[in-house]
Formats: sequence, C-alpha cells, structure tokens
Amino acid sequence: MFWNCNRKHMKPMEKVTVPAKQGRAFRLNAGQSITIETPKGSQAADFFAFNAENVGEWLSANHTWVTTFNVKPRQGDQLLSRFRRPMLEFEKDGAEGTHDMMIAACDQFRYEFFGHEGHHPSCSENLHLAMRRIGYQIDVVPQPVNFFTNTAVLEDGSFVSPPNTVAPGSFVTLKALMDVICVVSACPFDLPVDGWPINSDSGPSELVVSVQ
Amino acid sequence: MFWNCNRKHMKPMEKVTVPAKQGRAFRLNAGQSITIETPKGSQAADFFAFNAENVGEWLSANHTWVTTFNVKPRQGDQLLSRFRRPMLEFEKDGAEGTHDMMIAACDQFRYEFFGHEGHHPSCSENLHLAMRRIGYQIDVVPQPVNFFTNTAVLEDGSFVSPPNTVAPGSFVTLKALMDVICVVSACPFDLPVDGWPINSDSGPSELVVSVQ
Repeated sequence: MFWNCNRKHMKPMEKVTVPAKQGRAFRLNAGQSITIETPKGSQAADFFAFNAENVGEWLSANHTWVTTFNVKPRQGDQLLSRFRRPMLEFEKDGAEGTHDMMIAACDQFRYEFFGHEGHHPSCSENLHLAMRRIGYQIDVVPQPVNFFTNTAVLEDGSFVSPPNTVAPGSFVTLKALMDVICVVSACPFDLPVDGWPINSDSGPSELVVSVQ
Repeated sequence: MFWNCNRKHMKPMEKVTVPAKQGRAFRLNAGQSITIETPKGSQAADFFAFNAENVGEWLSANHTWVTTFNVKPRQGDQLLSRFRRPMLEFEKDGAEGTHDMMIAACDQFRYEFFGHEGHHPSCSENLHLAMRRIGYQIDVVPQPVNFFTNTAVLEDGSFVSPPNTVAPGSFVTLKALMDVICVVSACPFDLPVDGWPINSDSGPSELVVSVQ
C-alpha cells in the first residue's frame, strides 16, 4: 500500500501533481519506484527520503557523495542514508545529469538573506508540513538531492548555479531499496538574484509524481 | 570561563594536545578564539561546533557554502549554523587553504566500506564521546569542517582526495561569534586506500589546540 500526502491510497501509476512552491509526501515499499517529472522544465525538485520504519534515518547527500565519489547523483548510483545504508537507486535519469546535491534546502532565512521581506514559502517548510500531514514532527531538515537543478564547483572551489536548462518533460526515476517516505518539493525560489536563478526565469512550476 | 573535555577550566593560552585518533571538546565564549595546529603536518582535524546554549543548533557546512559560494572555508569567512546564523569567523588560515567541508565524518561503517574488519576509532565516535563527557547526548553527527584535509571537485563532478601536503606547524584560528562548544577530532583514518589518503602516509598524529 502507498499513499500520498492526503492520506488517501494512491492507485498504481496514478499521477499526482505537486503544485509550484508546494511539497508532497509519498510512501514507497521496497522495490517500488517513484518518477518525478518537470512538465514545463527548469523546475528544481528538492527530494528528501526517510526510512518508513524510522524517520531518524534519512537520505544523506553528504554520505552518498563520499561513496559514489561524485557530487552529482548519476543513473545507477545508490543513494545512502546517514548511517550509510542504501535507501534508493537512481534508476533512470531523463534529465541529462542536471542535478545537484549541495544546495541546502531553502528556508525563510535564505529568502531574507537575498533581501526578501515578509514570509516566503520554502522547501524546508514544505518538508515540515508534508511530514506533519502524515504524523511526523521532524527535527532536522536533511540536505536534499535537488533534481533538475544546475550547479557546478569551479577549480577554485567556487560554487555556482548557472541558468537552469532542463528541458520540459525531463524526469528521474528512483527505486526504493527499503520502505521509504519520500518528500518532493517544487522549490519556491523565485527571487531575481543575479547568478543564482535556480528555477525557470518565468518562475516556479509544478512537478508530476507517480509511484509504480 | 572555558573548559576542555576533562571538565577542568583551561588556563588562557594553555595548549591542549588532542592525541592521534581522539577528540576533545572546548568551550568558547563569544569573542574568544580557538587555534588548531597540526604539529607534524598532514593531519585532518574534523571540526564541529554547537551553540553552547542549545546544542540543537550546530555548525552546518552545507548552509555555509551556499552563503560564501565556495566549498572551501577561507580566511574571513563566517561559518553558519543550520539556522543560518553566524557561529564562528575563520580568523586566520595558516594552512594555505588546504581544507575540506564535504567529507562526512568517518564512522564504523565507513571503515567497513573500505574493508576494515573489527572496530575502528572514528570521528563520529570521537564526537559522541566528547559531547557525552560534558553531558550531552547528540542525535546527529553534523557535516564537519575538515581542516588540513585535501579534497577537490573535478569538472565532471568527481570528488577526489589528493595526497595531504599540509606542512608541519600549519594552523587555523577561529573566532566565536556566539558562545559555542567546539569539538576537534584528530581523524583516525589510517587505511591504505588508493586515492583516498586523508592523513599522512605515516599515519594519524596529534593536534594541538588552544583557546585565547
């Protein structure tokens, strides 16, 4: 059985829209796969995963890249938990490798850093809300895997985010290696920050998620 | 007042040796500085910091590099907490920039990954022990700042660790911007892994720490 954020059971292959700037939780049993698509393209998908039996064990980008020895998630990679156990396999990359594992999830303070005044939706709040909706208060916002996000580390260590060139209809598929709760956030970043575009120039858009 | 791991008050400028493969906690009031030295050179210093009034707020490398826009800690940088508040300033770099913020703290499972059998000391255990010694059970091993550690991200995203070339007597000094508990671990990594040397070929060595 699996469910989406509304606590309703999803029908197999049902497609769920994660609206722009919002997040949703999905449960996968070991062996099931989740597909995340950016229909309009250039929309960052912040992706979190927790052991469904123990949400204290979460997907850790930092523990993954010291094992894959690459800061990019690549098709075929196993994504590890903070206890270095395989949680998901990156089954199919339909986005030509344009992904990131290094940008911390945006939060209210990130938007204020860039000069925003007042409340702003964020991937951190989306995560907290999606988890509360299914009964979990989490204490830590893990480093997400940011699919459809264009970053690079230059030779001097500079961390940059070039324009997002991910084509409409790009997708990724991940296979669960244990029972997991996944949270997908359609990153709300929409500030006109020079050199840090993250999403499309036309603003955040929806993601489409299915569990097979 | 400040103390080291033995709960004794340190005298100002007193130098404390962190033995090879071990860790120690140090308390700094805002405005105080901590200096960490590798007397023999090429010894990774895993560095963690917690808000002394709330150890649920910790130094986050991931939140730091999206603000400094560089994956290396550099002299003059402010190191941020996971709530994006400035915790420490990197006051003086006496190691020519050879530092890392991306290698997750080693733990028992990391040594097993590289084929080690039986227990192995690790920076994660050193952190847990140093914090317990002063009364704290922590739930999360944060991403450390790894001083005197040589890593690079190549153009294709490969994450590599070239030989450690940090000279004997190299040091770093960090100034506390809030009251903090710092933990310094003399990384126990000593496996002969091709392309992943971390410490000196001759094995882990001690670090010397002082609080001013």
